[in-house]
Amino acid sequence: MQNNKTNPWKQLSSKIVYKNDWFSVREDQVEKPGNRTGIYGVLDTPPSVFIVAISDRNEIYLTGLFRYPTGKYGLEIPAGSSDNQDLLIAAQRELLEETGLKASRWEKIGQFTPLNGIASETSHVFLARDLEETGSELDPDEGILELRKVPFDQVFELVKSGEINDGQSIAALSLAEHYLK
Amino acid sequence: MQNNKTNPWKQLSSKIVYKNDWFSVREDQVEKPGNRTGIYGVLDTPPSVFIVAISDRNEIYLTGLFRYPTGKYGLEIPAGSSDNQDLLIAAQRELLEETGLKASRWEKIGQFTPLNGIASETSHVFLARDLEETGSELDPDEGILELRKVPFDQVFELVKSGEINDGQSIAALSLAEHYLK
Repeated sequence: MQNNKTNPWKQLSSKIVYKNDWFSVREDQVEKPGNRTGIYGVLDTPPSVFIVAISDRNEIYLTGLFRYPTGKYGLEIPAGSSDNQDLLIAAQRELLEETGLKASRWEKIGQFTPLNGIASETSHVFLARDLEETGSELDPDEGILELRKVPFDQVFELVKSGEINDGQSIAALSLAEHYLK
Repeated sequence: MQNNKTNPWKQLSSKIVYKNDWFSVREDQVEKPGNRTGIYGVLDTPPSVFIVAISDRNEIYLTGLFRYPTGKYGLEIPAGSSDNQDLLIAAQRELLEETGLKASRWEKIGQFTPLNGIASETSHVFLARDLEETGSELDPDEGILELRKVPFDQVFELVKSGEINDGQSIAALSLAEHYLK
């Protein structure tokens, strides 16, 4: 992937300028393309996990919630921070917490970087099949107001209509769509 | 879209904890789902624009560059910050700067929020057609090492292979794919 190209960016120094329990921000002195120097602010988080959970009837599970940073309501696939756990274990935890589902068939189908101009984060995408509804209570701290089961071939209608407006969910669903083709 | 649901999140206070020329970070005191209180760190940027530029032969234009925050090389669609300009004008500027293309047919085909757990950003997606290669020099500050023209029906092979690893490009390409169906 890196083929024969040389990364023109070089880190000269780095200092953390903000930190909370979920992310930190560092301001680096960098060498930029064209050998100029300057600063670059980077948002650091642990890797995240996104789960496309598909039933035997080709339905996928969506959660509905408000996001504080955007102020918007939307449908999303189950997801969360890995909290630096093993990625598969994190994906299994998030799926159970957000939908009450357990899956006995898991595949890692891809990964992407969600905001690569600012964030170092990588989002890992899992396909979860052979699902079992455990009936366990959803974690109330997640703020999930709705759980929806939608035929996979209709999910991009929800993207078109804007009901799914979460870019990470859209990217993960696209990976699943082409993986399953 | 918001239907009859009530946003459980409430901003109690807000202070900016970091700022550079590209983004700012605020730490808000918030009321969370379940009426608990706590802090929420939010990354604020201007809206961004993503351009799916398609030729008369159904080829799309990709740029190849290293991203400092991820340290990764990847192919992306032309994109950038709106710098709070009119979104269409920003999209036309970014397309010209990154590919040397002008388009006479523009459509806004959707939008998404790229990292809604942390960032307030909205990314706006445009389809650009009736393209003209102006031959203008690319902006060297962009750090673009490669310009590639790829048949649209092959672009998701590049997503699968990881050569396109930018989540915002993947989400925008998925919107275009389903818009054009």
